[in-house]
Amino acid sequence: MPAPDVSPPSGTRDLFPADVLLRRRTFRAVQEAFERHGFEPFDTPAFERLEVLTGKYGEEGEQLIFRILRRGDHAASGEADLALRYDLTVPLARLVARYGSQLPMPFKRYQIANVWRADRPGRGRFREFTQCDIDIAGSASPVADASVVLAIVDALAALGLPGTTVHLNDRDVLHGLVAAYGIPEALANSALTALDKLARIGPDGVARELAGRGVAADAVAQLLADLTAADPDAAIVARVGSDARGREGLDRVAALLALLPQGGDADVVHDPVLARGLGYYTGMVFEVTHPALEASIAGGGRYDGLVGMFGAEPVPAVGGSLGLERILLILAEQAAGRAGDGEGSVEPGPDVLATVLDPADAADVLAVAGRLRAAGLTVDVFAGEGRMKKQFRHADRRRARFVLVRGDSERAAASVTLKELATGEQTTLPEVDAARFLLESLANDPRET
Amino acid sequence: MPAPDVSPPSGTRDLFPADVLLRRRTFRAVQEAFERHGFEPFDTPAFERLEVLTGKYGEEGEQLIFRILRRGDHAASGEADLALRYDLTVPLARLVARYGSQLPMPFKRYQIANVWRADRPGRGRFREFTQCDIDIAGSASPVADASVVLAIVDALAALGLPGTTVHLNDRDVLHGLVAAYGIPEALANSALTALDKLARIGPDGVARELAGRGVAADAVAQLLADLTAADPDAAIVARVGSDARGREGLDRVAALLALLPQGGDADVVHDPVLARGLGYYTGMVFEVTHPALEASIAGGGRYDGLVGMFGAEPVPAVGGSLGLERILLILAEQAAGRAGDGEGSVEPGPDVLATVLDPADAADVLAVAGRLRAAGLTVDVFAGEGRMKKQFRHADRRRARFVLVRGDSERAAASVTLKELATGEQTTLPEVDAARFLLESLANDPRET
Repeated sequence: MPAPDVSPPSGTRDLFPADVLLRRRTFRAVQEAFERHGFEPFDTPAFERLEVLTGKYGEEGEQLIFRILRRGDHAASGEADLALRYDLTVPLARLVARYGSQLPMPFKRYQIANVWRADRPGRGRFREFTQCDIDIAGSASPVADASVVLAIVDALAALGLPGTTVHLNDRDVLHGLVAAYGIPEALANSALTALDKLARIGPDGVARELAGRGVAADAVAQLLADLTAADPDAAIVARVGSDARGREGLDRVAALLALLPQGGDADVVHDPVLARGLGYYTGMVFEVTHPALEASIAGGGRYDGLVGMFGAEPVPAVGGSLGLERILLILAEQAAGRAGDGEGSVEPGPDVLATVLDPADAADVLAVAGRLRAAGLTVDVFAGEGRMKKQFRHADRRRARFVLVRGDSERAAASVTLKELATGEQTTLPEVDAARFLLESLANDPRET
Repeated sequence: MPAPDVSPPSGTRDLFPADVLLRRRTFRAVQEAFERHGFEPFDTPAFERLEVLTGKYGEEGEQLIFRILRRGDHAASGEADLALRYDLTVPLARLVARYGSQLPMPFKRYQIANVWRADRPGRGRFREFTQCDIDIAGSASPVADASVVLAIVDALAALGLPGTTVHLNDRDVLHGLVAAYGIPEALANSALTALDKLARIGPDGVARELAGRGVAADAVAQLLADLTAADPDAAIVARVGSDARGREGLDRVAALLALLPQGGDADVVHDPVLARGLGYYTGMVFEVTHPALEASIAGGGRYDGLVGMFGAEPVPAVGGSLGLERILLILAEQAAGRAGDGEGSVEPGPDVLATVLDPADAADVLAVAGRLRAAGLTVDVFAGEGRMKKQFRHADRRRARFVLVRGDSERAAASVTLKELATGEQTTLPEVDAARFLLESLANDPRET
């Protein structure tokens, strides 16, 4: 039998301590922000019944679902009956359909969990990645829309990502826009898809796309004129206002803007061409951008048709997601910048690595380590065999702050010898004073602040 | 199309906030305990290449692996190429094989992660459940054995589970035992399996099982006599000492006992018939019991053949797991006992639910809520529509501590009205004093301590 490939499967990652700890801190900050806003955590299984997921993600998405083979005698059939979670919205819809009246309505939940998609892996694109969704189900009120946007902005601020901009729009503004420029309803979605690319391909690119999609030349010309005006947004808004449905959308955007404080942790702007791709939005849509990235780091909107998909009645809902994997990239780069070694983020090691020179000393060293831990210190005891030099090398590698030596002379004197690795400074002191000495040294170190 | 079944798949669970928060707190306490002992967190993907998992879990285990169908054009083949993680030991072995010299040796890692097994679901037995493993790879030293046991005991103490007992043994004690009673080598594993059930089926049950498995009558009689002696452990240990390999095992147990402090957070005892079922252990084995449960809540041992399974050379290793799902059951029962309502554990709701009576008030209420959050309070803003009564009912349901009302009169006076739901007490005070008033009231409440 050939040795199996020991790399993680294509598109997945083994996470080292620095990664795990960064993710954990990030998730915790987001959880606390969402909970401050009254969102509650729910979790669902990693897999769902296959029929719960099929027919929800379009033809292309459907191809990317990881299906699980039936077990036991049914495995030979080659059939699947379960599938890995593809997003967090369909599980939410299932949850609402199942527990309905047991849930407090409006139902505010958040979920931070892995999803799996058999996408072609690429830089920053994984087959296993973490999504982070907040949703309010059971309310059509603009207070719900505002609550989602505010919680997302608060979470980003808690992550130390200032300078974000919230771009707002409404699907009815887009419908009004299409009508106002005389684009036929049949071409509406196609035209909006082209407009959604504005930030990426510019006004001329959008105009070329629209023409290519069959939009009449005079409509394209008028739109191009507005997109290249001194204040393109104002030009487009003025045009949208000539349509009744468009005016409804503009009124809703204005009402939402009035609910969101300006000049807080994020700028909030109306972006009248923002469409957010996904066809399932029915009202407000939003995206959050950050200067460090061209792509958005959060987004969402109102989708009144989606959460009720498994129930008898539609359930109005509004939600948003943080682009956690993108955010983690920014945070890891920031941490690497601070560490200044260009090698990715670095975690501090244990406060103390306790050496064990002679097996006969081990019980005593383990007991000393236990007493230091009880005082709040992180103490690794060298668990292998090897001479002092090897144990000091290990301490270096583990980025320990101090090495503890407790040989015969220290034991006889009830003392310990502590060497600070960064300075090489070595101190022998009574064991009863060791915890305080260490805690003070650690508190005074600039690396810890 | 019939509506799909909206229950979670067989053997899996939807987790409500109280569950999620209990799990999160529990995992955090365990993480902190392991990190205090110098173990580092690593994580691996939810699925592995199929060939990494096959041939590792025996015929029975193999049937329980969830296999993932190939994607795209290959899906029609009905073949699987990936499989969901079945335990955390095989991924650890893959990690050590892949990153070998990049890892500091001895390599001390912990992992808390879900695994999936297509077991028949039952009370407390799930198809998706969380495992929690710590391991030290690359050391054959008894200091490593002791370090694993100490970290596990510390984690259990951190979870508030006092009164645990650590039962230690060594595979060589078992080999010596089999030899000492004259049980032929061919029957050794069968006999040890029977002995491992002692706590459950008693000495007579073991004797019957042994006879049924073909152990000679005089050997059974001798063992039964020892098992029913005044001090059965001493009788068996004396017998084991007559065998050379048994004596080696007894010496190792004695050496390990000398490394573990007595009278700390757990009693440590030698249990000379403890086998821990799994055939892959090669040295020390241990189990931790708790008075609240018949089954063990943690266990592990030395398995020098396992971690090197993907590499050219064997890697000595010792590890242990916490039975997290069992522990969570105990903790949930304790929480329910404290809550005193017998309905499972209960989480406190938001500090404040802010009502919105008139849509025109919403911007102002959201701004007040934002200022209270900035002061550290958890504030839910009612995001639906409905009269005051409905909003108060919602506050009750969400277990909010205070309801905030900010109507025209409050706004005019720059004040807020706060009603404490438990007491019905209602206070109108300047908004600038609200945060301090709330924080003090919350700090003084017995429910919070």
